[in-house]
Amino acid sequence: SRRLLPLSLGLFQGVLLLFFTFFVTYDEPSAQPDVSSVANWIHGIFPFFQDIQVMLVVGLGLLLTFLPHYGLSALTHNFLLLNFSTQWALVLQGLLHHLHHGHVHLDLHSLLAAEFAAVTVLISVGAVLGTTSLCQLLVVAVCEVPVYLASEWIITTHLGVLDVGGTITIHVFSCYFGLGVSKGLFGAMQRPVHPKETPTPCSNLMSLVGTLVLWVFWPSFVAILCQPGDAQHRAILNTFLAMSTSAVTTVVVSSLLEKDGKLSPGHLQNSSLAGGVAIGAVADMAMPPVAALALGSLSAMVCVLGFRFLTPLLAQKLMLQDQCGIHNLHGLPGILGAVASTVAVLVVSEDTSPSQMPPAGVNASKMAVGQWEEREAGKQALCQAAGLAVAVGGSLLAGLLVGATLRLPCLARPPLRLCFDDSLQFEIQGQAENPELCGTDEEGALALKE
Amino acid sequence: SRRLLPLSLGLFQGVLLLFFTFFVTYDEPSAQPDVSSVANWIHGIFPFFQDIQVMLVVGLGLLLTFLPHYGLSALTHNFLLLNFSTQWALVLQGLLHHLHHGHVHLDLHSLLAAEFAAVTVLISVGAVLGTTSLCQLLVVAVCEVPVYLASEWIITTHLGVLDVGGTITIHVFSCYFGLGVSKGLFGAMQRPVHPKETPTPCSNLMSLVGTLVLWVFWPSFVAILCQPGDAQHRAILNTFLAMSTSAVTTVVVSSLLEKDGKLSPGHLQNSSLAGGVAIGAVADMAMPPVAALALGSLSAMVCVLGFRFLTPLLAQKLMLQDQCGIHNLHGLPGILGAVASTVAVLVVSEDTSPSQMPPAGVNASKMAVGQWEEREAGKQALCQAAGLAVAVGGSLLAGLLVGATLRLPCLARPPLRLCFDDSLQFEIQGQAENPELCGTDEEGALALKE
Amino acid sequence: SRRLLPLSLGLFQGVLLLFFTFFVTYDEPSAQPDVSSVANWIHGIFPFFQDIQVMLVVGLGLLLTFLPHYGLSALTHNFLLLNFSTQWALVLQGLLHHLHHGHVHLDLHSLLAAEFAAVTVLISVGAVLGTTSLCQLLVVAVCEVPVYLASEWIITTHLGVLDVGGTITIHVFSCYFGLGVSKGLFGAMQRPVHPKETPTPCSNLMSLVGTLVLWVFWPSFVAILCQPGDAQHRAILNTFLAMSTSAVTTVVVSSLLEKDGKLSPGHLQNSSLAGGVAIGAVADMAMPPVAALALGSLSAMVCVLGFRFLTPLLAQKLMLQDQCGIHNLHGLPGILGAVASTVAVLVVSEDTSPSQMPPAGVNASKMAVGQWEEREAGKQALCQAAGLAVAVGGSLLAGLLVGATLRLPCLARPPLRLCFDDSLQFEIQGQAENPELCGTDEEGALALKE
Repeated sequence: SRRLLPLSLGLFQGVLLLFFTFFVTYDEPSAQPDVSSVANWIHGIFPFFQDIQVMLVVGLGLLLTFLPHYGLSALTHNFLLLNFSTQWALVLQGLLHHLHHGHVHLDLHSLLAAEFAAVTVLISVGAVLGTTSLCQLLVVAVCEVPVYLASEWIITTHLGVLDVGGTITIHVFSCYFGLGVSKGLFGAMQRPVHPKETPTPCSNLMSLVGTLVLWVFWPSFVAILCQPGDAQHRAILNTFLAMSTSAVTTVVVSSLLEKDGKLSPGHLQNSSLAGGVAIGAVADMAMPPVAALALGSLSAMVCVLGFRFLTPLLAQKLMLQDQCGIHNLHGLPGILGAVASTVAVLVVSEDTSPSQMPPAGVNASKMAVGQWEEREAGKQALCQAAGLAVAVGGSLLAGLLVGATLRLPCLARPPLRLCFDDSLQFEIQGQAENPELCGTDEEGALALKE
Repeated sequence: SRRLLPLSLGLFQGVLLLFFTFFVTYDEPSAQPDVSSVANWIHGIFPFFQDIQVMLVVGLGLLLTFLPHYGLSALTHNFLLLNFSTQWALVLQGLLHHLHHGHVHLDLHSLLAAEFAAVTVLISVGAVLGTTSLCQLLVVAVCEVPVYLASEWIITTHLGVLDVGGTITIHVFSCYFGLGVSKGLFGAMQRPVHPKETPTPCSNLMSLVGTLVLWVFWPSFVAILCQPGDAQHRAILNTFLAMSTSAVTTVVVSSLLEKDGKLSPGHLQNSSLAGGVAIGAVADMAMPPVAALALGSLSAMVCVLGFRFLTPLLAQKLMLQDQCGIHNLHGLPGILGAVASTVAVLVVSEDTSPSQMPPAGVNASKMAVGQWEEREAGKQALCQAAGLAVAVGGSLLAGLLVGATLRLPCLARPPLRLCFDDSLQFEIQGQAENPELCGTDEEGALALKE
Repeated sequence: SRRLLPLSLGLFQGVLLLFFTFFVTYDEPSAQPDVSSVANWIHGIFPFFQDIQVMLVVGLGLLLTFLPHYGLSALTHNFLLLNFSTQWALVLQGLLHHLHHGHVHLDLHSLLAAEFAAVTVLISVGAVLGTTSLCQLLVVAVCEVPVYLASEWIITTHLGVLDVGGTITIHVFSCYFGLGVSKGLFGAMQRPVHPKETPTPCSNLMSLVGTLVLWVFWPSFVAILCQPGDAQHRAILNTFLAMSTSAVTTVVVSSLLEKDGKLSPGHLQNSSLAGGVAIGAVADMAMPPVAALALGSLSAMVCVLGFRFLTPLLAQKLMLQDQCGIHNLHGLPGILGAVASTVAVLVVSEDTSPSQMPPAGVNASKMAVGQWEEREAGKQALCQAAGLAVAVGGSLLAGLLVGATLRLPCLARPPLRLCFDDSLQFEIQGQAENPELCGTDEEGALALKE
């Protein structure tokens, strides 16, 4: 069974090669109007794309290293899941969307869409970080990507929901999917606090560096799919403003809640980013900048309050394990952002229309501009709300099913004493002397509990 | 009094929201010539902007983590001060500069100007890193931003000083402001060397990574406000050349000064960046590239010499505490750069004029091109010198006043035994067992000294 | 002899200043068609350039910190060698290529060419990381840069080899040069495993972060010199695809080879990047995307297999020391990429020609487009193979000579007990208490062996 993981991953690489051999080509040169417009398009979008890559690979990876004995695993799992899920999304996207063209044309845009699908996996598995095997995580990826693609199609294409930064389609969806997986997997099991769960000053520092990397590049994540020009400019500024008030508000609220007015590292690591989650659905709308400030501040508030009160409550009442607190960072601010977008389309729709220009050349926006202009504001608001409902309901249901599947014995859930520990997955040299010494007592105690 | 910090920060967030509600809007779409020119402007300036964000949030934050028990606080204070000061600068800029337009128009350019104001705060507080409370740092920010805006107006707008990379307006200003604060706060107090002040190999490594991040992105910091085209190209190349010789010269001088020809981590962490500080005032001028090399080399020399000889001297004679050595990194190279700019305008002014083009479209440079062409070189040189005098004198005076204010008892200077320690500000889990053990003796000894 | 290093480095800085004084200027403004085309060129190329800077300074630096007591030295040596070698390459390039123009014109393009020369040094010294003095490393840099420039001229200009991402000219060349240096320096000496050679979980984590930084920005490294437009777009996508399958395949193969299906941190740190090395020679060709996937997968396979079987074999049979495993990361995948390019020119040459556009304006590609179109595919394939032979043979020979030179007593090879230890090079405060304690026994044992 130790060979199950490499063999299935290897098999998937084979499938990927076959699929690409028969179906995927690059755009033919003649399909593009002229060289300089392709060059301009690349030079416009590529820096945003690289920023997002840094966020996902380095920023998110480091953020997850807050468990002091699980840093290598957290970084590696995040990196592997990103690559696997992107490849899987490329295959599914090809099959689903482009097959009627005969050939699938790969470009930076389709790569980006596949990466967004992978992001949902990276967020969801945060709920079960450290208590699952790599096999289980890959099963989550295999199941979540098609569900995301379906959900994204319903929300964006069918309902015409405006969500340029993925607040609803990515953050809300992946949060409730992840919570569903956690519930489905662990059921009503209650777990004692594990001695390796407590962050050290060093692991807190590494994790905070990850937060800062995410914080810096978040405007690129939100703005990459906006219309170039005023809408993209607004999206950058709105995201910056929201994240800036998030950072300050986090300090305010954390300091008010903790004893002696101190700060909690966990609050800073997560809640500073809440504004970026919430702003996504409204970032490019022609609303006044104060709305971005208010949304950033509010979302940081609900995030810190969630960590302080809601997470313990859910753990106690619903036996819900949420290791990274994804409900506080992605769920609550995501819902807040979705509600804000419902209000925003009612208030700002008239002002916005004239600034929306038709897509220029190769640069097609995710957002269905035409739909919005035709539609009356009330109908659009209903659609925003319906999109939120689909994202919450669909993902929770699918997640529960996937979580139940993860209980299959062949997927090798790690024993409790190997949870939160790199030695489950990594061949660590010279390990014999060191962690054995400080580990024996704890592990003995845990083994007894099991 | 533990509630003073969150309540005042919260109050400020309220003021910010009110100000934005009534005064701030985005540029109206019609104000811009056409969509594609805005898109080009964004695609041209945004990568530079993101580079600067990485420098300030990740690079500078990591550079400050050289104190081994103060890493979380250093990163967090830097992050919070950046956000708070940027917001405060946006409010003040709005009130001061744009109010006569009726509405304040926010764009990436005004955001950048506000961030430059925030940079001065981040540099200044380096002088008192680890020995001040967050409350005191916020008071510094509240006071320094308006003084900077006034000083920058006098230097750049009134005197017409050429300083595209902020050598005089940012580095020299913030250095002497910070030294003033330190002197005003600590007066003639002498502090024994604190046991937690000594960097560990690990903290030195993290700090050096911060230096490298700053080193890599410094050309973006210097070149972002240059005229696109030849001037910006020159600014990038000059900054690169200056920083490259700084790095090599640092090794030469540090190795000559330390015993056994070894290197000091502190020299590398700071002095490798000295060339970037010095080049700012002349980076876009049409001087030969050798001038950039020489300036980088010289500035690294004065920086290392400053650490080795001047800092101990100032500490002994003037009782001046300068925790991060900002005088060596920002003060001395900044003065060198200002002097170089005085010489440069005398020598290169004729060659430069033809390459200066009028601003194209939305992209307005900070530099008053017209003024320069009209002015004779001698007068410009006088202005450069006058700008330096204003930056040094004004900031020192204002800093001393602010430092004296920080002595107010309500601002809660930390007791000596909690200096350089994250536990002053952070709720650290599981702390009870570990640092208590190795901390008790030291802290007992310090408590006695107090 | 402790003064040899700073004095020779200082002397070199003087030579650099003299050379720049008499020979180097910036492009004259009139040489460029118009301001907006220069501005567009800068905005197009500068983000790629910054990405490469991050790779070399931060990414590669961190990758080398896997030796737990040698992190500061690894980061610093990498940083110093990059700067020194770039400056040295600028001098030599100036003398060799541009002297017949009277003046050497410095622009971002020539800077980039000099940095590519420096990259070869950074890769080569990986073979002797931790067992050499800084003096020795600088001698390697002094010798390797001119050999690289000659080799690059033969391969790219004379033979017309297609190698946009430096697979042959940079990776293969620097690998065999480094192995030659190691063999020439250490001869048949066998070294016992040093106690400080074993990575710790923390040093493995830092090194993996370096890998991830390199992984993210590799597409910029490969694509920066491509024709803007379709070729650059393809290069970005091909590199991404190759690196993505490299990452997944690394997990598959490492897990199959290690006991209990665990992963080796060293495999992940290196082999995830193998696809980027291999794809360089074919990245911009109009081949189907499946070729990039296959190449990435294969190169990761050979890299992991190299670590597992070839490195121990070479160490045993040839007494070859390769500290970082550069043969596995740069040698084997590089050869694979070169072979792939030989096949590719035979297969895809007809399709490619029409998509190759003449260089537009200032943006000249490294690749001799005209040559390719005229040539028949068979001759080009021969040239690719000849280029590989030149890169392997020339570098190995030159490296052996340089390695033998490093045995000169004045170059001060560190004694075995100071290998892999920062205290050889760095003045570390407070060191007296700590590492002495855990170091004495090991060092005593080593001193005896010596």
